[in-house]
Amino acid sequence: MFVSESPEDPADPAVVAGSERALRLLAESIPIASVSASGERLEEGAQHFAKVLADAGLSTQVWPSAGAPVVFAEKPAPAGRPTLLFYGHYDVQPPDPLDAWETPPFEAAIRDGALFGRGAGDNKGQLLAHVGAVAELLARDDLGVGVKFLIEGEEEIGSPHIAAVARTHRHELKADLALTADAPVHDDGRPVIIFGVRGLLYLEVSLAGAPRDLHSGNRGGIAPTPAWTLVHALAGLRDAAGRVTVPGFYDPVRGPDASERAMIEALPVDPAHLEAELGPIATTWAPQPSWQESPWTALGFQPNCNIAGLTSGYQGPGTKTVIPSLATAKIDFRLVADQDPDTVFAAVRAQLEQSAPGIQVRRTAAVPPSATSPSTPLAAPVIEAVRAATGVEPLLRPRLGGTTPDFIFTGILGIPSILVPYGPPDMNHHAPNEKMTLAALRRGVACTVAICRRLAQEASVG
Amino acid sequence: MFVSESPEDPADPAVVAGSERALRLLAESIPIASVSASGERLEEGAQHFAKVLADAGLSTQVWPSAGAPVVFAEKPAPAGRPTLLFYGHYDVQPPDPLDAWETPPFEAAIRDGALFGRGAGDNKGQLLAHVGAVAELLARDDLGVGVKFLIEGEEEIGSPHIAAVARTHRHELKADLALTADAPVHDDGRPVIIFGVRGLLYLEVSLAGAPRDLHSGNRGGIAPTPAWTLVHALAGLRDAAGRVTVPGFYDPVRGPDASERAMIEALPVDPAHLEAELGPIATTWAPQPSWQESPWTALGFQPNCNIAGLTSGYQGPGTKTVIPSLATAKIDFRLVADQDPDTVFAAVRAQLEQSAPGIQVRRTAAVPPSATSPSTPLAAPVIEAVRAATGVEPLLRPRLGGTTPDFIFTGILGIPSILVPYGPPDMNHHAPNEKMTLAALRRGVACTVAICRRLAQEASVG
Repeated sequence: MFVSESPEDPADPAVVAGSERALRLLAESIPIASVSASGERLEEGAQHFAKVLADAGLSTQVWPSAGAPVVFAEKPAPAGRPTLLFYGHYDVQPPDPLDAWETPPFEAAIRDGALFGRGAGDNKGQLLAHVGAVAELLARDDLGVGVKFLIEGEEEIGSPHIAAVARTHRHELKADLALTADAPVHDDGRPVIIFGVRGLLYLEVSLAGAPRDLHSGNRGGIAPTPAWTLVHALAGLRDAAGRVTVPGFYDPVRGPDASERAMIEALPVDPAHLEAELGPIATTWAPQPSWQESPWTALGFQPNCNIAGLTSGYQGPGTKTVIPSLATAKIDFRLVADQDPDTVFAAVRAQLEQSAPGIQVRRTAAVPPSATSPSTPLAAPVIEAVRAATGVEPLLRPRLGGTTPDFIFTGILGIPSILVPYGPPDMNHHAPNEKMTLAALRRGVACTVAICRRLAQEASVG
Repeated sequence: MFVSESPEDPADPAVVAGSERALRLLAESIPIASVSASGERLEEGAQHFAKVLADAGLSTQVWPSAGAPVVFAEKPAPAGRPTLLFYGHYDVQPPDPLDAWETPPFEAAIRDGALFGRGAGDNKGQLLAHVGAVAELLARDDLGVGVKFLIEGEEEIGSPHIAAVARTHRHELKADLALTADAPVHDDGRPVIIFGVRGLLYLEVSLAGAPRDLHSGNRGGIAPTPAWTLVHALAGLRDAAGRVTVPGFYDPVRGPDASERAMIEALPVDPAHLEAELGPIATTWAPQPSWQESPWTALGFQPNCNIAGLTSGYQGPGTKTVIPSLATAKIDFRLVADQDPDTVFAAVRAQLEQSAPGIQVRRTAAVPPSATSPSTPLAAPVIEAVRAATGVEPLLRPRLGGTTPDFIFTGILGIPSILVPYGPPDMNHHAPNEKMTLAALRRGVACTVAICRRLAQEASVG
């Protein structure tokens, strides 16, 4: 079923068997609709992954949290060898819009060389590539390193409880390197190795006016106008050029250092590809200065304030003359080192409360940014293993634009952390028809096998 | 069933029979769900009202328009006597939210001394009070004046075609005075006579970004942001104090003249009542200068710009990190003499297009404001008739805050026009559980009877 992509050993039995195992496990896991946004089937998702890891030969525990349970599994390292901590999540995004799926989101469907289903890429498929590889190496007594798995069930809602779990289980989580596969590979399909993530601060703001919607003729001019107040409050958060206007917001921001800048300069930019995705940027939208340098600088080293949702009054077709009694917005900030979500939240809330008395500001997610130095000792062997497993020189990217709870490794546990994604560029994560190609799944298994074997030649740095 | 409110003649047979007839006709008309917003059952609504007027003894026509048909009916005046032109509409607002209705919106239900149903007050009930009175006076050969009815089916969507119809049928619509009953009486239940309306300009604006919603982590900072552009464009339309900032917007605005100011000063203001409806204005919301003079000045002589709807991105509960590909707003302007909707539209569109290149601005309704001088010759007899029929000194209000297509009389046909509403203050028009109290319906019939009889003593001024 799989076309080998390993230049080293086209019939490496661990890779072949690991890929078959990962595919079977993925197909079995798709029907468990563990949607964290709605709190569905999370306990079941945790138990399922605990069983998968136990079946793989790891000693496994399910840790309670203040939210969804966390799965932990481990296989101790041979003496003096490093321990790898694999991070992943068993929760998935909501499947809406349902009618845009070609096959039901919670039924695994294989077509066109890919497995389709919610979570196929984000994150069950990529996580199971790790699991499949580790299981087959273990079965062949060929693992050579220690491994731990930390699998949470709330990544898609901002990982609100994983930090507390990491603090509680600091000892069990000790490792030499954290590895996460949770994003697509580079747009052109090349493997990419990433050394950090942007943080996230997600806010829901709301303003209430009259006790109910009013007629805009009868009361327009004397009624409270929460929609207008919200518009003015939001307009005060970010200027027309896209720069956040909250005092102190940019103070802790530090740009790429010399080695990070070198990485960015080596990263390809494909304007045609980006414009197909984003629209005609140059003609229509004022680009930000950092974008002019490189999109990778903008996405990795510039914070951003996004309106994710805006709701007030009449939403239907046609004309309704109503003064809305409520106006709400969902806002997400992407934060970069060394911005602190708590500090940003306090400043944003203070500004909103000053410009819109009575505004309600609720923080629904706060994840600090995270960064690992590219010169961390185990980075070079990982890069070497990915190169060997794929036959392609991996791209090196200093930061992911998105957010994972990478800070629990770099910030809480003091472990260097690297992201090595395997998802195909068109994997449709967070969208209908999410998929994992069989080639990408095999590549994930091959890379994991190679990384374990290569790190087995290194000494523990812990 | 009715408690008499007529101090003149508690058992006036025309009023008693007219009220019974109006109630029966209203109950029969409620099930015809003639919702103009969705274009439902409008032809049927027109035919129904044509039959009602023909049954009342008027010669009746149904005029086509570029939209819903218009019903016209007439009974010529005795020689030298004035002709009254009654305006009303057979279309109703959409019934949503359906689950807030105690009984189905399109089933007439009588309880607690009122008839409930969509259109009970706005406008079927008030219109049928006119019809019931005219029918009984005609049946008793006691009409004494000429009457015409002009009943459209698109009032609730801004009367887009009534002006063309009025121009086409200028001759048939000739009259001495236009009379409209389409609003509630004064908040305290007293009768009110109104000499004009604010105009309406309704816009739908939209901004598109990328071809589809994007992940705010992966693309936040380099993707187009239509929600932000919309927020800034809207913020530029109106300042934080509520004043519209479109160049030239206020130039044609004229405040109340001496007689209108005297009317306003005599109009009661009940801050407790208003605050119960609007919320604690003084403490929470910056009042506008005109409000500080009187809410009646603000509502009648100040234009207003309202956000009626705001939609972008994720509308559901919880956290979704999406960069919306589309942002839309519904905006309504209420205009006062001598603002022209076309001029305002051009200025607003120009400003929006300048601040947000690529913005789409669509005008869905444009109704000019309208004003009639309180010293128009037939005003005094109408006031006298209302006083006599109700036993209460009617309040005089220069302008309605809302909009009716009153300009077709004052602007196109050159007929003075007066609004004499009968709806109870809590009639819930445009809201669930819309109702017409039986007492208010009878008052409408009694006033119409009194107005016809009183104007029969006047000479035609046409």
